[in-house]
Amino acid sequence: VAAVAADGRILRRARFETPPRPTPAQIVHRIAAAWSEVVEGLAAADRPAAAGLAAPGPADAPRGVLRQAFDWGWRDVPLAALTSAAIGVPVQLDNDVNACCLAEMRFGAAAGVQDFAWIQLSTGVGGGLVCAGRVYAGAAGLAGEVGHLVLEEDGPPCACGGRGCLQALVSGPAIARRYAERTGGAPGAAPAVFAAAADGDPAAEEVLQAVARDLGRGLALVVNLLNPALLVLGGGVMESLQARLPAVRAALRARVIGQANREVAVRRSAVGYDAALLGAAVLGTRSAGQP
Amino acid sequence: VAAVAADGRILRRARFETPPRPTPAQIVHRIAAAWSEVVEGLAAADRPAAAGLAAPGPADAPRGVLRQAFDWGWRDVPLAALTSAAIGVPVQLDNDVNACCLAEMRFGAAAGVQDFAWIQLSTGVGGGLVCAGRVYAGAAGLAGEVGHLVLEEDGPPCACGGRGCLQALVSGPAIARRYAERTGGAPGAAPAVFAAAADGDPAAEEVLQAVARDLGRGLALVVNLLNPALLVLGGGVMESLQARLPAVRAALRARVIGQANREVAVRRSAVGYDAALLGAAVLGTRSAGQP
Repeated sequence: VAAVAADGRILRRARFETPPRPTPAQIVHRIAAAWSEVVEGLAAADRPAAAGLAAPGPADAPRGVLRQAFDWGWRDVPLAALTSAAIGVPVQLDNDVNACCLAEMRFGAAAGVQDFAWIQLSTGVGGGLVCAGRVYAGAAGLAGEVGHLVLEEDGPPCACGGRGCLQALVSGPAIARRYAERTGGAPGAAPAVFAAAADGDPAAEEVLQAVARDLGRGLALVVNLLNPALLVLGGGVMESLQARLPAVRAALRARVIGQANREVAVRRSAVGYDAALLGAAVLGTRSAGQP
Repeated sequence: VAAVAADGRILRRARFETPPRPTPAQIVHRIAAAWSEVVEGLAAADRPAAAGLAAPGPADAPRGVLRQAFDWGWRDVPLAALTSAAIGVPVQLDNDVNACCLAEMRFGAAAGVQDFAWIQLSTGVGGGLVCAGRVYAGAAGLAGEVGHLVLEEDGPPCACGGRGCLQALVSGPAIARRYAERTGGAPGAAPAVFAAAADGDPAAEEVLQAVARDLGRGLALVVNLLNPALLVLGGGVMESLQARLPAVRAALRARVIGQANREVAVRRSAVGYDAALLGAAVLGTRSAGQP
C-alpha cells in the first residue's frame, strides 16, 4: 500500500504479509491497516482522495469485481466496494498486469506508445495488452495470457495443466528445471543458473541461450498477431536476462512477417518491481475523475 | 465492384481480370470501367454517393493509402484518392481482411459481438481482429497475421520464408502437399483431398484430422492472447473443413487457459465469398458520413 505523487514518486508505503488462502475480509482488514499507516504519516495536503487496487486475477474493472484469484480460491469478490467501505475513499480496481501496463504508459518505458504488450517474466509468465492507447482485457478479462501460448506440443508440463507453454520454458522455475535436467542435478533456483553462466559454466550458458531463443519465439507470436510498436519486459527473470536481449530480439525477428514487425522495439520495464503499485495509483486517479 | 443496399443485398455487380503485376493506373482504370457498368444499370435513387475499397495489403486507412501490395510490388499508393478522382465519389479504403471483419459485424456471424477474430483459410491464411468493437490494425496495419504464427520450429517451409507457420500447415496448398507427402504422389489440389476422405481414403482422413488439430492449435494461440468471444472462419478451405469443426474446437479447448477461453464460439463466416466486397460497402457508408 503506498501514497504516490502525480509524477510517480512513492511518498510513503506500508507492507503486509498475505496469509495462506486468505478470506476477502482478512485482505481488506490488512489493506485498511496499511492504508491508515500510510495516510497518517502524510502531510494533510498529500492525503489521497481516492485509491486504486491491482488485483491478482482477472477483474471486471467497471464493476470493481475480482472475478477470480486462483491462489486464494476466490470468485466474484466485489473487492473495490469492500475496500472503499474500509478506507473511506473511492476505489478503482483492475487486474495487476493491466495496472502494470498503465504504470508503464504513465511513468515508464511505454510513455507515448499506443500499441504495446507488457510481459512479466517471474515465477510465472503473464502479460497485458495495450491496443490503440487502451488496456485491452478481451471479452472476459483474460486477454494477454502470453505465458500459456504453447510453443512445444510435447514440451514440459506447465502449472496450467498443459504442456510446452511459454511459462514452462522461460519462467524462473522452468530455467531451474532445464538446468537440472541438463546437468542431472536437483532443481535449484534460477539465480543460481544465471550465476553459473556468469562463471563460465557451459551447461548454464546453453540453457540460457535456449531460454532466450524460446522467449523470442513466444514474443514472435505476440508480434505477428498484434503488430505492436513495443514489447516491455519486466519481472525478476528479466532483470537477469537483460544482457541476453539481443539474442531474444534475433529469435523474434527471424519469426515475424513484415518490416514493421521486425522493427518492433523490445525494452526492459522502466517501472520495475513497483509496476503494479504505480499502476494502482494510476487507477486511483481515474476513480477520482481525472483522465 | 458492386452496388450494395443498406441491408447487404448486392444490387448489381461487375468483375474485371487483374493483369499480372498491374500498375496503379491499370487497376484504377479497370475499377472505373466496372463502376460505370454497375452504376449505369441502377435506378437513379440507388446510385451510390460514396464507395469503399478493400485493398490487398496493409493499409493506412485514415490517409487512404495502400502501404504495400506484395503480389503487385506496390508501396505507399494513395489508392483512395486515385480511385475517387476516377469515379467521382469519396472513397474510403482499408485492408481486405479488415473489410471482411466489418462485413461480418454488419451482416454476418459477428453481429453484436465486440471481441472477435476473423480468419480466412484459403490459398493463404490471413486474419483480422476486432477489439472492443473496433477493427484493430496494430501499430503499422499488420495486426492479425494469424497465418504466420509458427506452430512447428522445423516444420514445412512457408511462402513467407519461414518454417512451420499455420499457413504452411492448413492452407489449401499445404493440405495438398501433406497428402502428397503421406501418399508419395504428386501434389494435387486440396478439394481432391477432401473428396478422397469422403470416399473413405484413410490417408486423406489422417491428413485432414491432422489439419483440424493444427488449426485448433493455431486458434488456441489467438484465444490465449486475445480472449475473444468468437472466432469466425471463412475462405474456401473452411467450406470443406466445416464438418470437422468439432475436432478443431476440441484441439483449441485442450490448449487454452480459463473457462471463458474454453467457451469461445467458433463459427463459419456468414458472409462467405462476398465478405471483402460487403466490407468495402460498409467502408463506403463511413466515407459518406454514416456511422
